Amino acid sequence: MRSVTLAASQFACSWDRKANIAKAKDLVRAAAAKGANVVLVQELFETPYFCQDQLADHFALAAPFEGNPLIAEMAELAKSLNVVLPVSFFEQAGRAHFNSLAMVDADGKVLGLYRKSHIPDGPGYQEKFYFTPGDTGFKVWKTRFGTFGVGICWDQWFPEGARAMALMGAEALFYPTAIGTEPPPSPPVDSRDHWRRVMQGHAGANYVPLVASNRIGKEKGQAGEITFYGSSFVAGPTGEIVAELDRTNEGVVTATFDLDEVAKMRASWGLFRDRRPELYGSLRGHDGSPR
Amino acid sequence: MRSVTLAASQFACSWDRKANIAKAKDLVRAAAAKGANVVLVQELFETPYFCQDQLADHFALAAPFEGNPLIAEMAELAKSLNVVLPVSFFEQAGRAHFNSLAMVDADGKVLGLYRKSHIPDGPGYQEKFYFTPGDTGFKVWKTRFGTFGVGICWDQWFPEGARAMALMGAEALFYPTAIGTEPPPSPPVDSRDHWRRVMQGHAGANYVPLVASNRIGKEKGQAGEITFYGSSFVAGPTGEIVAELDRTNEGVVTATFDLDEVAKMRASWGLFRDRRPELYGSLRGHDGSPR
Repeated sequence: MRSVTLAASQFACSWDRKANIAKAKDLVRAAAAKGANVVLVQELFETPYFCQDQLADHFALAAPFEGNPLIAEMAELAKSLNVVLPVSFFEQAGRAHFNSLAMVDADGKVLGLYRKSHIPDGPGYQEKFYFTPGDTGFKVWKTRFGTFGVGICWDQWFPEGARAMALMGAEALFYPTAIGTEPPPSPPVDSRDHWRRVMQGHAGANYVPLVASNRIGKEKGQAGEITFYGSSFVAGPTGEIVAELDRTNEGVVTATFDLDEVAKMRASWGLFRDRRPELYGSLRGHDGSPR
Repeated sequence: MRSVTLAASQFACSWDRKANIAKAKDLVRAAAAKGANVVLVQELFETPYFCQDQLADHFALAAPFEGNPLIAEMAELAKSLNVVLPVSFFEQAGRAHFNSLAMVDADGKVLGLYRKSHIPDGPGYQEKFYFTPGDTGFKVWKTRFGTFGVGICWDQWFPEGARAMALMGAEALFYPTAIGTEPPPSPPVDSRDHWRRVMQGHAGANYVPLVASNRIGKEKGQAGEITFYGSSFVAGPTGEIVAELDRTNEGVVTATFDLDEVAKMRASWGLFRDRRPELYGSLRGHDGSPR
């Protein structure tokens, strides 16, 4: 029996960077007080979701991975609370910029870096203007409480990334997120349930718990505004939602899993036994021709 | 605008093979009367789900693809009703046996053969005793009403197959199925919602409608019994269930999609634009090491 408690969290961000970090830390403390061993804070929580607009000024928000003060501050918190903390941040790396994540173990050690692989682009979500598609590949980390994989926001729509992390041994998946309404000229889609169903599918297909943390609040850009829909959740290994937050309130929720029991059921269900890798060649391309 | 109506169906099978086929044909007619252009009949509908037991006698139920009387009969029906019919059957091929599907176009032409790629094995589902894992790879067919892909039952749990068919141009996915309770010594799992969520995830991740048809009824084997849970459904391209049947009643349901509108929204959402095939090498293996 290996009981592990996972937490999702959400809050609204402002242009007061210190206040955002303080709020994130408060929520991590609240989750730890509920017994959480791993706490997921939302994507790019230091600032508003600056990718609403294509503005050269926003590149100044980035900072290097090495010596990053945000990561150091969160690592100190992780150590003091004995929790694993995936930390989303805007990375400057040489002349490139990435949408990145530092994985912090419960002893405060920074285990490594993941750079968002899938970069969206569309009205309100101008990420291709800022971020080079990640060059790290998918990563999992052996932490004090289990082996965990993290994708970042748009990564959550791609079954390949979830599967890759599961194949590398991920016992749970984490997706820090910033998603809400689609500003014009997009059709006025509410993607909340679509967003959830795709990740519930990853959980169910890989038989792993999954945590998504998404921001809340209305943020105005130059071209329009986005209302982020929160709805952060924890799903169990059959894709069932076991804990969730609503669209508008900040907070944390937790769910506890026996990761040894999950592993036994995963093996028994046979999904990894029966894969046919020799038939998956077309996934290495864009057009479905075998590779 | 290209409006296409898809139908799911379900019924209980007995050892009266002619009655099973007659029932399947009745349901296809009922779906066509509701305007269906494509009608999905459940997996291996000629007989009870014989894979409950490992019995040598059951190999005699198989028949070759060429000259197959079931396929001929269903092709005649397809032509008379102007509907596309995926036809599941137990195939004998040389010394091998496959869990196969013939794709029949609305003019009665047999477009080709797919052999189930992923073969389950567990209490009540002894498919590895009967079926060689399929050697056709995933297939899509250009039919009168669109380009469609079909997976067979256990295939429905594997995101790779759904993605492969989507990459080949599938505008909708179809999964004929036979699934129900887990007989002892399995834990008494009700997998109905898990089963649905994984397929809803495929629909949402690939932005395609998806149809699943599953049998109903209690079938006794030598070792135990299975209560098949029906719950056949049609999902829309965000994974939402738009039409469904219950656990116990036979019937058909339909849902209509504008496949041109779906294609436009799929392109706009960007899921195929932003894939990173160069990062998906580990999916070509079982252990997550890059290949």
